[in-house]
Parts: sequence; structure tokens; C-alpha cells
Amino acid sequence: MSDKSDTQNRGPAEPKPQEAGADADVAFSRRVPTGDSLPRDICDRCGFIHYVNPKIVVGSVVTHDGKFMLCRRAIEPRRGFWTLPAGFMEQGETTEEGARREAMEEANADIVLRDLLAIYNIPRIAQVQIMYRAELKFPSFSAGEESLEVALFEWDEIPWEELAFPSVYWALTQFRSVMDKPFIAPFTNPEGETDNLFPKRPAPGV
Amino acid sequence: MSDKSDTQNRGPAEPKPQEAGADADVAFSRRVPTGDSLPRDICDRCGFIHYVNPKIVVGSVVTHDGKFMLCRRAIEPRRGFWTLPAGFMEQGETTEEGARREAMEEANADIVLRDLLAIYNIPRIAQVQIMYRAELKFPSFSAGEESLEVALFEWDEIPWEELAFPSVYWALTQFRSVMDKPFIAPFTNPEGETDNLFPKRPAPGV
Repeated sequence: MSDKSDTQNRGPAEPKPQEAGADADVAFSRRVPTGDSLPRDICDRCGFIHYVNPKIVVGSVVTHDGKFMLCRRAIEPRRGFWTLPAGFMEQGETTEEGARREAMEEANADIVLRDLLAIYNIPRIAQVQIMYRAELKFPSFSAGEESLEVALFEWDEIPWEELAFPSVYWALTQFRSVMDKPFIAPFTNPEGETDNLFPKRPAPGV
Repeated sequence: MSDKSDTQNRGPAEPKPQEAGADADVAFSRRVPTGDSLPRDICDRCGFIHYVNPKIVVGSVVTHDGKFMLCRRAIEPRRGFWTLPAGFMEQGETTEEGARREAMEEANADIVLRDLLAIYNIPRIAQVQIMYRAELKFPSFSAGEESLEVALFEWDEIPWEELAFPSVYWALTQFRSVMDKPFIAPFTNPEGETDNLFPKRPAPGV
């Protein structure tokens, strides 16, 4: 995964056509295509319609021997902060395959998915995050290209003040709350937290 | 929702840039952008990078008094066949808001979402379907613009041979199998059914 397809970019989900690059010579107007109901960016020159829909992030809370695997980000946004293995789903794969691929890319970790932990909505950046409960297949991992380091943390050792994104906090704490349950109904955003802000309360159980 | 943002199009998830329109004058090459790891369509003229990620369909199995709400499609693909209220998620909404919007658009139905029924992956068309269990808020509905008619069916009256898509069958039968359970772990594709083919077996309980 490159910085272009980064996990939880806090800016717009992708550059607008007008911002496509320094050498860009794009001329898009925003209008409703024939037979459509919403305005879209349409190239004035060639008629290309740039449909933009929400993007899917797939990832997982990975545990081993009761410890939690976190990756310290080597890329922006939030370089140096800790995150879960997760990233943009690509064409041609399933959500489960994407979550396994991200663990391999970011942590060289072979994981086994258990079940669905949560679906988070971040409408501000048009992102849907699909997060699984997972386990390491072997106690073997290392930093992938996009990670500075990868580590297993005891719950009390998790660097709560250095988490990269609010949804990392959501996933860890929600995971912890159902750790002993073999079957769960998946979580959604914690109540009232639609805006991707960090929670003000401390992590429960810390 | 227009035919451009149609629910479960059995062709590619969206036109390739090269096929953007009859008057198109687009010149895209497929190559790996700087800092990326996968090839993308890039405009030879302006440098615009056309990222394409899987699209999300949001919808629901809507019941009322033990009956199932289905919509007969007024648009292609599968015009004249019966489907669940579902469609492409748009930017700026949550998955739940999208599912409610689709029920309103296709069936003029105000629905209450209960919980997550399933996440289906259709990688062949780069689609992830997020389906909820829902109920009619009032026993009031009618055909929206994209429906020829909308009706409530007893289980045994469901027109199984005239369902629009395999995932409609999956959602109905999986819903039925957990109808009495207040909390469920969501379903995924029925085993082995990744290719969006209609099941050969008859619907259980019919």
C-alpha cells in the first residue's frame, strides 16, 4: 500500500480531479450527468464522468497470547504513531483477503480472521472501515515498508497517547469488551462519535 | 439513484475511463504512479490518476408483520425482476443512512434498521454489499422511480424464480434462518458462492 492509498487519511478521501498533480491540465465541471440525480465532476474536454463513492478500509485487531499487535506508522498522516494493520481495499479482493493482505504488507504477519468486530463510518472523509478480530497464525512479524516497527503490547502497555486515529482506539476498546465472547454482533461508531475526534475519556481498564 | 449508480450491475463496477462516453476523447495508460504499488489508469494528457476501489452497496431486508418487502425493478440490469431496497452508498452519508435512503428512494418506505445482517463480497464486480435487518416504520410504501411495483410477500409467496440477483436470495434465506434471534453475528457469502451465480438448490422452506 502506498501513501496514495493510505489507511485513514484525515484529508479528503482522494484528491479532486482539479488537484490531480502539478502537471495537471484537467478541466472538470461539477454537474448532474444525464440520467443521474447527483452532481459529479465531468471533464469538459472528453466527457469522462468521475464518480466518487466512499472507500472501504479493511483491517483487524490482531492478538497473540492476549497481546495486541500494533504498527508504528512510517508514512504520513500520523507518521510515528501506532495503528492497527489496515488499509484501502483493492479491486478483485474480498474484505477478508484485504484485511489479511494489509497485515502481511504492514507487519509481515500471517493472520487468521475470526469474525467481524465492527463497521465504522467516517462520513467526513467518505470512509467505511470494516474491522475483524484476528490472531497471528505464527508468532512471527516484522515491520513492513509502511511501518517503523511492529510490536505486541499487553493491554496496560498500549501507548494510548500515541495512537494514530480515533478508530484505532474504538477498535481496541470494543475488542477488549467482548474478548471472552466467541460470537458477537459487530460494533459501530461509539455513540456520538461520527466526526473522527479522539475520545476525551481515558481507555477503560487502563 | 440512477442507472449509472445502479445497485448490483452485473457488468464492471463502473465504465473504464476509455469507455466514458460516445463523445469521449480520453487517453489513459495503465501504469504504476510514483510511490504506489499497483497499476492505475493515468491520463496521458493531464496526469489525472483514476483510482478505482471497490464500491459499497447498502440495503436491507425489510419486514412488516412477518412479510418481506420486495421491489420490482424498473431499470436495467434485471428490469422486471424483484430485488431488495439497496443501492450504491454515496459520499457524506453513513452505511445506515444510505440503507434508509435507498428504501425511501425505491419504495417510499420509512424503515427502522435493527442490526447488520450480512457483508457480501462480489469481487468479480468489485462490490461489497452491506445488508441490514429492518422493519417498516409504518405500513406505507409505494413504487419509487426505479421500481415498477413494491409489495409485501409472505415467505411462501416470494417469487423465487424472479429474483434479480443471487445476493437477494442469500439475504432473504439467511434472514429467515435467524428470524427469531434478537442478536446475530452477521453472515457472509454462502460457502463457495463468490461468483454471483444463482444457487441451484431451491429456497429452504419453500
